[in-house]
Amino acid sequence: MEKPYAIGIDIGGTNTIFGVVDKRGHIINQGSIKTGTYKEINDYISNLSASVQEIIDQVGGSSSIKGIGVGAPNGNFFTGCIEFAPNLPWKGVIPLAQMLTDKLNVPVALTNDANAAAIGEMTYGAARGMKDFIVITLGTGVGSGIVINGQLVYGHDGFAGELGHTTIIPGGRVCGCGKKGCLETYTSATGVARTAKEYLQTRKEPSLLRELDLETIESKDVYDAAVKGDKLALEIFEYTGKLLGESFADFVAFSSPEAIILFGGLSKSGKFIFDPVRKHMEENMLPIYRNKIKLLMSELKESDAAVLGASALGWEVKDY
Amino acid sequence: MEKPYAIGIDIGGTNTIFGVVDKRGHIINQGSIKTGTYKEINDYISNLSASVQEIIDQVGGSSSIKGIGVGAPNGNFFTGCIEFAPNLPWKGVIPLAQMLTDKLNVPVALTNDANAAAIGEMTYGAARGMKDFIVITLGTGVGSGIVINGQLVYGHDGFAGELGHTTIIPGGRVCGCGKKGCLETYTSATGVARTAKEYLQTRKEPSLLRELDLETIESKDVYDAAVKGDKLALEIFEYTGKLLGESFADFVAFSSPEAIILFGGLSKSGKFIFDPVRKHMEENMLPIYRNKIKLLMSELKESDAAVLGASALGWEVKDY
Repeated sequence: MEKPYAIGIDIGGTNTIFGVVDKRGHIINQGSIKTGTYKEINDYISNLSASVQEIIDQVGGSSSIKGIGVGAPNGNFFTGCIEFAPNLPWKGVIPLAQMLTDKLNVPVALTNDANAAAIGEMTYGAARGMKDFIVITLGTGVGSGIVINGQLVYGHDGFAGELGHTTIIPGGRVCGCGKKGCLETYTSATGVARTAKEYLQTRKEPSLLRELDLETIESKDVYDAAVKGDKLALEIFEYTGKLLGESFADFVAFSSPEAIILFGGLSKSGKFIFDPVRKHMEENMLPIYRNKIKLLMSELKESDAAVLGASALGWEVKDY
Repeated sequence: MEKPYAIGIDIGGTNTIFGVVDKRGHIINQGSIKTGTYKEINDYISNLSASVQEIIDQVGGSSSIKGIGVGAPNGNFFTGCIEFAPNLPWKGVIPLAQMLTDKLNVPVALTNDANAAAIGEMTYGAARGMKDFIVITLGTGVGSGIVINGQLVYGHDGFAGELGHTTIIPGGRVCGCGKKGCLETYTSATGVARTAKEYLQTRKEPSLLRELDLETIESKDVYDAAVKGDKLALEIFEYTGKLLGESFADFVAFSSPEAIILFGGLSKSGKFIFDPVRKHMEENMLPIYRNKIKLLMSELKESDAAVLGASALGWEVKDY
């Protein structure tokens, strides 16, 4: 009999959330534990396994589960290991997929969060039926999941799809990765806040943003000001969208996708971000690509997206 | 019985060359016609078919031929059409694959020259056994053929892999495509000559290149001067390699290939181009990619490469 459920586990620096998902993308039941509480990886795995076992038992035991998909920072699909993740409590290389399989006796596949988002869009979201698309996650950082010929692109070593670390301004802002001018330093939520601070310090015009404490300004504040028609806030979105659009034009020259899908925080700024992205993407593309590449918003419900994305990978794991 | 031969046809603006190739990449016999002579596509197809039929008959007729692969500017794999090629005599959309199949009764597949080069490297050259690599062709223009998971990347519309038209210097040199700052405008043979002219006009230091007519300087002249230790010529290579290396770092962030393979004219400048490319590529890559991505020279013999590349596609065509 075909197994009716997959498990999705999303490992974040603060929380680990997980759920049982059916084929149509409904989360049947779910749970969470605090990632940061477990300084020892063995304690973490024991507690996570026990909690996941509970929700498995609620749907009839492991014989109902096709597979477990895990999204985690620096998750390597090929090795099943989390490798040197800066924001997790455990150092070095963690063979997470193997450790979970040993405890739960269900096959486990692991990838990073942006790849999980891409598989989620393909399975349940905006990319259903598409074989060539790119998901760009705009959050604290900028991530990407690339699908070509219906397959997620892992590259020869499992680390493909780091489009947040392509260079958009040579010699530009210093990035956490050690490089300069990475797309992420301008177009992540943090990057937008950085732009806001720069604009407020180097320009003279009035802005609603001047009423806020310069040090604690967030991208959400820029959005709120833009909604009220604040000119400086709109210019910040225009600048952010320009850089994203220019980058997208280069990504299109690589894989000529049917669509680019925006996922996460900043993508919810709607027309403030979509309009300038579309304009500058079209202006910077070769004529053969113009007016052909869709620019879409994620169709995964925000609160469920991480678990859904990870669970989508669970459908694809092989039985061992 | 397995069919022992494939045909490769390379359509250039001046000449069309073709040959019968065996599985090990030996060209058994070959021929050519003058592309530019035929203003009417029907005349061209008639003459090309007659000439190709001759070499087919020499190896035992069409029952010995697995397929015909064609490399042509703006060749679209999905449609089998040459679409709006600026350097060929025929306007609009030419259903070349269908026209040739009708005449020769052998299945025909078509793609652009850079894609043909990539399939050629995978079948007979430097990429044998690789599943993830990128071929960059450095000629009059800059082209690319991208292989991921053992498959050539065509994109949703057949036009993927135009890496020569990614932006390396925002607002930079005007490109034939209508954009500004494309990689091609700096790192093609023409781009190198353009750099040489700029350097000679804006700088004062002595150089062997000053003995030449500024208007007719070619990339080959820069190479000859570099071989003699000319400092300005070496700086031109350093600058060209820097831009290529920076671009390659971004390409790696996309597909994390096992290797990037340089093909065509400029790639034969050896260490003058490879050393700066390698240095700047490594400096601009994320730490996870460093010292892992091979930078290789094409292993297809120059005079045979175009026919071999196209023929490699001939092995992959489906019987209808």
